[in-house]
Amino acid sequence: MNGHFIFKHFDLNDEGFINKQDFIVIMVTVTPWEVKGNIDYDKLIKDFGVEKLDENLIKRIEKHAGEVHHMIRRNIFFAHRDMKFILDEYEKGNKFFLYTGRAPSGDTHLGHLVPWLFTKWLQDKFDVELLFQFPDEEKVLFKKDLTFEEVEKHLYENMLDVIALDFDPKKTKFLIDTKHADLMYKEACKVAKHITFSTAKGAFGFENDTNLGAIFYTAMQAVPAFLPSVLAKKEIPCLIPHAIDQDPHFRVSRDVIPKLGHYKPASIQCRFLPGLGGMSEDGKMSSSAASTTTVFTTDDAKTVKKKINKYAFSGGQVTVEDHRKLGGNPDIDVSYQWLTFFEEDDAKLKQIYDDYKSGKLLSGELKAILIEKLNGFLSEHQKKREEAKKKIDQYILKV
Amino acid sequence: MNGHFIFKHFDLNDEGFINKQDFIVIMVTVTPWEVKGNIDYDKLIKDFGVEKLDENLIKRIEKHAGEVHHMIRRNIFFAHRDMKFILDEYEKGNKFFLYTGRAPSGDTHLGHLVPWLFTKWLQDKFDVELLFQFPDEEKVLFKKDLTFEEVEKHLYENMLDVIALDFDPKKTKFLIDTKHADLMYKEACKVAKHITFSTAKGAFGFENDTNLGAIFYTAMQAVPAFLPSVLAKKEIPCLIPHAIDQDPHFRVSRDVIPKLGHYKPASIQCRFLPGLGGMSEDGKMSSSAASTTTVFTTDDAKTVKKKINKYAFSGGQVTVEDHRKLGGNPDIDVSYQWLTFFEEDDAKLKQIYDDYKSGKLLSGELKAILIEKLNGFLSEHQKKREEAKKKIDQYILKV
Repeated sequence: MNGHFIFKHFDLNDEGFINKQDFIVIMVTVTPWEVKGNIDYDKLIKDFGVEKLDENLIKRIEKHAGEVHHMIRRNIFFAHRDMKFILDEYEKGNKFFLYTGRAPSGDTHLGHLVPWLFTKWLQDKFDVELLFQFPDEEKVLFKKDLTFEEVEKHLYENMLDVIALDFDPKKTKFLIDTKHADLMYKEACKVAKHITFSTAKGAFGFENDTNLGAIFYTAMQAVPAFLPSVLAKKEIPCLIPHAIDQDPHFRVSRDVIPKLGHYKPASIQCRFLPGLGGMSEDGKMSSSAASTTTVFTTDDAKTVKKKINKYAFSGGQVTVEDHRKLGGNPDIDVSYQWLTFFEEDDAKLKQIYDDYKSGKLLSGELKAILIEKLNGFLSEHQKKREEAKKKIDQYILKV
Repeated sequence: MNGHFIFKHFDLNDEGFINKQDFIVIMVTVTPWEVKGNIDYDKLIKDFGVEKLDENLIKRIEKHAGEVHHMIRRNIFFAHRDMKFILDEYEKGNKFFLYTGRAPSGDTHLGHLVPWLFTKWLQDKFDVELLFQFPDEEKVLFKKDLTFEEVEKHLYENMLDVIALDFDPKKTKFLIDTKHADLMYKEACKVAKHITFSTAKGAFGFENDTNLGAIFYTAMQAVPAFLPSVLAKKEIPCLIPHAIDQDPHFRVSRDVIPKLGHYKPASIQCRFLPGLGGMSEDGKMSSSAASTTTVFTTDDAKTVKKKINKYAFSGGQVTVEDHRKLGGNPDIDVSYQWLTFFEEDDAKLKQIYDDYKSGKLLSGELKAILIEKLNGFLSEHQKKREEAKKKIDQYILKV
């Protein structure tokens, strides 16, 4: 990760996890009260060219939201571009809109929910519109054997998961690239005209065998950042909550969008939910199959229990005796790490951390806490997911 | 033009003429009864990888059309790909559709009308549908300073010229890339997935500073060749009448389209109407300004007269005495060449050729014949162009 940062789509595995060793810094050990482990945020932030979400900005967010989201408190959302501009404008009465998205290519897993849950919080606290992009062509273009027919099914399933998070249908619109291309393609061409092959190659690592659609795609991902301004015929600031891997797209398009007469979009960025396999000793992420690395939003309680018990990498000792004596290591324990994403209560999380470290809490007991937390959430989510089937149409953007 | 043929959009000047010396073979000397001058059709055909429109095919076209169009008789339409397939299917009762187009970027000139007039003839004689593409993004992407706002105006004016040629509104539909992108973009992605950057670079000569939209564009140009099959949910053969410069697009897409389950599109190809400046002694085409190289469909009779008299390159002698004695050279005379495109009557054309060559017909008189021919056509065209203003909507594709 020295110098110019190159992100390649094809370095993501089928579950959307990143395999590259370069990215181990993204899977880090945090507690609610301090950053631990081997993460060097300053280096990460420097390499990506983003800015740290500092105390001053967090205080300004708190002033308007009335609270600080636990994903900010725990450095899950840790970086940004131009948040100061967004808050300055907001304080002047010039509200921003939110833009995030999902490239349909498989079932939704808990990792996908991380930026969406945070986006939902932003929408509620700042009372703003959300444009949710489903770039249904992206994965077709980047995955050899994936077809539009398959993506159509994933799109439907993914939409249910977004709706199930209770986004306000009056303030939330879905933008589906191929279906809304009559709104998007012309704008994408305006963006594309300002991006040379060299620039795209530098940002995305394109090769001679990269296909033409994959090369063009980044222009389509830029469009939602200013489409509301085009449609409203007035400039509206844009804030993009997204996982850090998407940054290269916006790093490129942020240079272009102002040339088209629009505000430079701002962003707020999170790291990834680690895979269940956790970090191996050499620091590499697990690249095992989907069923062993993640929990899907449609997994039933029994499956979740089985996956966590069987696959969640443990920081505990091999025997109960040793564990009681030496204590576990929450900093590398995936069940604990997952709780930092999904357990909102800092006091509860600190207790778990301390108890596990002291050996009072056994690995099986820690897993049981996570299983209960996830199943409680998923049981509710799955009910809302069923109800969502009747609601899709009200979310689709109509102009 | 050895080996692999590379066509670059930016080698066209503002009037859509080709400046490159490579293309001098396209501006050739023909008479209605034989090919003259320096053209080597066999080499041209070999370099482009197309096939000659041979006697056997011409006879089969004549069988159905009841006549041979003068642009075929005069080798203006001289090459094809897969015409045999088109005629085989037609004879089995499987009608083809026609696909041609115009990238709006300036006023329509007489050179643009050449393939359109021929397409109109095909539509009438074979009673087939026509999809007329207006790729309104193409020239924006390939010309540095051209904007969509300017193209919008050209699009409107260009549409009037197409309608003025009396295409059957029931059988003719306009497809405008940015407006119909909801039908096209997904299909273009399917095409693009099968074209690597290497392939596109080889065909179009892309460089590192080529923009991403220009790189993607060829995929959009491929779509009309099978879109009617997608919409009809049954396969319909496609015949593309076009000027030879567009061949690289179809050479690339013909490899891809069958992979998507559609017929490989056929084509029938013409050479260019020469610019008024004609060929200079070193064989280069004139690259002077629009007003001196071409006649626009909106030029009034006086302007046409002035342009032809002033700028049409003459094959006559300097003095009347010399001309009477030595005769003129119709093979390099642009007025004569233009008559081969627009004077349908072979006998009349032969008389002009012979009279000019013998010195009986003076250069001024030859120009007067052309001026009368063009102004007769344009007077009628301009009337129909006015009427076309009320007809645009019935030509726009609605699905």
